[in-house]
Formats: sequence, C-alpha cells, structure tokens
Amino acid sequence: MIDAQDTAFMARAVQLAWRGRYSTHPNPRVGCVIARGSEILGEGWHERAGEAHAEIRALSQAGPDARGATAYVTLEPCSHFGRTPPCAKALVEAGVAHVFAATKDPNPSVSGRGLHMLREAGVRVTEGLLAEEAVRLNPGFMKRMNVGRPYVRLKMAASLDGRTAMASGESQWITGAEARRDVQRLRAISDAVLTGVGTVLADNPSLTVRRGELGDIGDATEPSRQPLRVIADRDARTPPGATILQGGNVQIYCASPTLATAQAQDLAALGVGLNGVAWKDNGIDVRELLDSLGELGINELLVEAGPTLAGTFINERLVDELWLYQAPVFLGSTGRPTANLPLESMADKVQWKVLDRRQLGEDQRLILVPA
Amino acid sequence: MIDAQDTAFMARAVQLAWRGRYSTHPNPRVGCVIARGSEILGEGWHERAGEAHAEIRALSQAGPDARGATAYVTLEPCSHFGRTPPCAKALVEAGVAHVFAATKDPNPSVSGRGLHMLREAGVRVTEGLLAEEAVRLNPGFMKRMNVGRPYVRLKMAASLDGRTAMASGESQWITGAEARRDVQRLRAISDAVLTGVGTVLADNPSLTVRRGELGDIGDATEPSRQPLRVIADRDARTPPGATILQGGNVQIYCASPTLATAQAQDLAALGVGLNGVAWKDNGIDVRELLDSLGELGINELLVEAGPTLAGTFINERLVDELWLYQAPVFLGSTGRPTANLPLESMADKVQWKVLDRRQLGEDQRLILVPA
Repeated sequence: MIDAQDTAFMARAVQLAWRGRYSTHPNPRVGCVIARGSEILGEGWHERAGEAHAEIRALSQAGPDARGATAYVTLEPCSHFGRTPPCAKALVEAGVAHVFAATKDPNPSVSGRGLHMLREAGVRVTEGLLAEEAVRLNPGFMKRMNVGRPYVRLKMAASLDGRTAMASGESQWITGAEARRDVQRLRAISDAVLTGVGTVLADNPSLTVRRGELGDIGDATEPSRQPLRVIADRDARTPPGATILQGGNVQIYCASPTLATAQAQDLAALGVGLNGVAWKDNGIDVRELLDSLGELGINELLVEAGPTLAGTFINERLVDELWLYQAPVFLGSTGRPTANLPLESMADKVQWKVLDRRQLGEDQRLILVPA
Repeated sequence: MIDAQDTAFMARAVQLAWRGRYSTHPNPRVGCVIARGSEILGEGWHERAGEAHAEIRALSQAGPDARGATAYVTLEPCSHFGRTPPCAKALVEAGVAHVFAATKDPNPSVSGRGLHMLREAGVRVTEGLLAEEAVRLNPGFMKRMNVGRPYVRLKMAASLDGRTAMASGESQWITGAEARRDVQRLRAISDAVLTGVGTVLADNPSLTVRRGELGDIGDATEPSRQPLRVIADRDARTPPGATILQGGNVQIYCASPTLATAQAQDLAALGVGLNGVAWKDNGIDVRELLDSLGELGINELLVEAGPTLAGTFINERLVDELWLYQAPVFLGSTGRPTANLPLESMADKVQWKVLDRRQLGEDQRLILVPA
C-alpha cells in the first residue's frame, strides 16, 4: 500500500538527488529521505564520488530516530564495499524498518543484491515508486550500465531555415545570452563534451563550463570538475596551443595512438590522451568511440560538433536527445546546414518526438528524442 | 473619461467584428455595440460586402432605444453613399449621443469625415479606444488603403532542418492534420492565394478552402467565396486542365497579357485573367504584382509558393507575416530549402520577431514578423 505521503517523500528524494547534477559523475545522482509518519527525520543526496552516499547522509542526520523509520531512496542501496561501506548494511544497522527503492541498480552484476540484503535482514522493501522520475535522473548511468555506452545529447544552434553559418564559413553567435547560458548548464551536467578537429581548427573553442556564465545554480552542489573534452581527430592535427587543451583533461581519438607525427608527440607530451579508433570513409566509427567513452566511465556525452560529426550521429541513429536551439532568423539557402545528412527518400527521414519546448530570450530550445 | 465599461463594450465590438473574418472582403471587418449604462441595446457586425454595415445592424436591433445611447464602433463610421447609406448619418438620425470609434478610416480621402459629420450633428465623439486591437482586425485593409498593396502572409511548412522536400523533389505532407486544418483557416481569411507556375506544375494544388476541412468556425459568418487564386507564370504555362483553374476566380501574372501562345488563348477562353507584369532575372517583379493586387481590392494575400517565389518575397523584405509550420523531422542536408535565399554575409541575415508560437498536434506554428 503506497499512499500520497510515500509518493511525496520519494518526490523529495528525487529533488534532493538532482542537487548532485553537476558533481556526482561518474557516480549516479541519488537522493534519500528518512521519515516516520509525516515527519522527515533525515535527508541526503550524493554529492561527489568518494564522498558519502545519499543514504549515509540521511541516516547521519536522522541519528537514533532512524530505528523503525522508513527510507525513500531513488536507487537501490549498494551492497558492496567500494570507497564507502555498503548502504544496505548501514540501513539495516540503523534499524530502518521499510525501504522504498525507486529503481533497481542498473548494473547487471549487482542489481537486486542490495534489496536482497535488506530483505534477508527483515527489512520490508517496496520497489518502483516514481521509477520513471528516478530513471530520468541518471539516463547516462543507466545506459552505460546496460549497454556500456554513454547517453548521447547532440546540441545544435541553428536558424529557422536550418543553417548554422554562411557559405563562407562566417558565423557568430546566432542565439542569444539566455540560450548560451543554457548550453553552459548542459555542459555542466555532461561528463564529456565531444567535438571534431574541424571545429577546433575553425572556432578554437574551450568547451569548458565557465562558472560565471552558469549563473545561479540554487541548491545544487558546485560543479566539481570540467567535463572531459574529447576530440575526434583522425590525424592528431589538434594544435598544441589550442584553447581546448588548456587545463588538461582531454582525450583525442585518432587513427592510431602511436601516430609518429611531431604534433602527436607534442600532444602526448602535454598529457593529452591519444586513443586509436577505427575510421571509415565518412569519418570516425562512432560506435567504437562510444564504447571507449563508456569504458572511461562517461555517463552523459554532449556532442557539440560541426555538420559532419553531427550528421554521423544522426544518420547512425545514435542520438538519444537532440537539443536544438533555434534563433528567429534566416541565414539563407546558401548557408551551412546543421548536419551533413544525405537522405535519399522520404522513407529515410528522421522523425523526432518533442519532449520539451522552451523560450529562452528570443530563441527557442527544443528537446527532441527519436520517435 | 473612458471607464472599464467602455473598454468592455469596445472589446465586444472587436469580438463581433472578428465574426466577419471569412466573409467581409474586400470590405473591412467591423463590429458595433450600442449600449446605455451597463446594458447592451444592440449588436452588429459587417457580414458581407453589399450587406448592412455593423452600425446599421446594431441600430436596427436597438430600435428607438438608441436615442441618447452610446455606440462603440471598431472603425470610423462611413460618411459616403456607397452600396448602403452612410452610417454616420444613420447614427445621427437614430439620436445616438456618443460614439466611440477605435480607429479612423484609413482611406486618406475619407478619413475623419465620418467623425466630422457626427460632431457637426452634435454627437460626442471619442477616438482611439482599443485602437491596436481594431487595427489588427484589418491589417490588409489598413495597408491597402495606406500604400495600395495587400498585407502579405508567407506560409511555409518545413522540417526542423529547414527543408520542404527531398532533392529528388519527392515530398509529401510533412506536417500533420491539425497544421493542415490551420492552413485552411489561413486561406479562408485571405482575399487571395499566390503561387508560382512551378508549384502548379509539380503539385497541381487547388489552393481552395475546403469547407469540411475548415472545421467548426463557431459564430463566424460562413465563408462567402473562395480566395482569388493568383499564379505567377511568366509564359502562361499553366495547363488549362490544372486543378487550380477549377471553379474559376483565377488571375495569372505573365510577361505579357497578349501572349499569342495557344495555351494562353485556351486560358483566356476559360475565363482566366491574364495580366502583364514585369519580370526580372530572378523572377516576377513582386512590387508591381502587389500594386496590381491592391488595385484588385486584395487586402490580405497568402503566399503559398515554392522556394523561388518565397525567397523573392523574403529577400525583397516584402513579407509582413511569416507563418512557419515546423514538423519535428529532419529531411537531411540534401533536401530542398524552404526558400531560395542567397545571402552572402551575416550582415544580410533576415531577423524575425516571434509574434506567436503554437503547438498543432506534433507540429509547431510560428508567426513571425520582420524584426
């Protein structure tokens, strides 16, 4: 029997989990509420890998009152000794009588073990309350645990006639300040940002989160690191002086990790990771790239790339979410397309479902998922 | 002194006027309320050219009670004997004591005369209440009276990547049923629909209002006629069997009205109007075309054309409103653009202001005006 009170407490746990949106990676975002009747005794959320899990923080706040209480956790409590002792054990030892877990751990090798440990110890366990909301907290962690690849968000900023720049390559910010701030937030929730060497050479972007532009993050935990910058760069042409290399934390995916070019040696000397990956006629083998990023613990990947790489992701149906920022402007039919996407017939068209539309200043943001 | 009551009655008059949206052309949409204190004595709106004006209908409903009452009219009452006697005279004769007129008549040769006639007869006159709303009722009538040209709405249906069809020309409805119904309403408020011969040859459209698809029009007056169909067709190549010619009411704008081709003769025999207009390298001289349509009494022109004609209107900055229907789909970078618009540099970009966004099924409708 789940009542409105239970749902409200789990909703609160989801809300708490979201506070870790900029900081938990590679761990999942998790929230926990400990309550008895209508009274909340303790709240917690996971802030950073290596630090206390949500349950431990909530238990610590509840203290001895946790005995006989109910815990609401957005993810199955862990059962293994990692950097911290298992949360399932801590809940048992605190005497918690009932645990609501919104979702099972998606990792197939441990899924269900935490709940089993609780049940074995006589704790009542209820699964699945607000499961959908809890899954949405961690699309990347869930996907990586299931298929070994990050959740892919493709970001595009385009005109209403689907262009990003003039034929000459001339471009400038076509979206306004609010849309650009939104992109900062998008980068900040991402574990990695992927671009192509063409963009590096043409625009020399940093692809970092600039804390000042991120604006007020409310009660969220401060971002703990920059997203990993990833460059698809077959011949390791990224200039050692490129802005994107400043501050380190960059991986380059090239045709061979042992490229003997002087530039590749310079990059390696700068501490840039050089990884070999297959390349095909139309560019990098994105599936192999995603596998590799999954191995690096990347949950949520943001693709901010030129039309070639963006087109490859769309064409191979590897985009989980398309974030399309539309400026109310026409750049003309000679302008550069948002994505190089050579479709032959109507049957090949790429159909999206609109998840969200939002006005950002003069611009509009659409969040689209494959239909 | 204008109070909330006055504003409410004028708002009602605006609402009444809108009932004539499908039927008054080439006349303006006008509404009238006659009231005393908080009581409405009579209401009227103009239904069709040649039938009673709004004031006459409202007076007739009010009867002898109109003596000493106040009239709220969205447009200055007429002062001239046309197909009906002047409304200003009728208001005076009915003994109306006070007339609120939202806007002056935009026709420079009669503007102010109706109000003058009222004042001369001792009627109190107040101008400008809800003027903006009243102007919006008749953007085309206002523009035609001022500059001799229709108000131009350009309709486009495109993918999110700014395409209308595949490179092969293959196309199909890319927007859904709700968007298509909305286009029917858009046609129905238009005095004329313009297309190019390329569209006629490729798609063989009717460009008529199909009453069944228009849906429920509420308390609006039934459409009284089809919009005039206008074809930009330099060499009078429109096939005499084209669907668009069925039911008549078509004007073709070609290089010369006396084209001696057999097809032109066939068209003339069918009763199709053949008009000469200048053509330039990049197509029809749209300014001359608009002047001619203004002379034909076209207030509101809807452009439903292919990329060439659409591009000309945008490029020459002759679009008053762009109605952009966006389907949540990508047709690919090889697809046909919404408009042939060869812009060289960012400085040439066409900036729009979003007047309205609306979800229509899976699609979105944007109404844009030049920024």
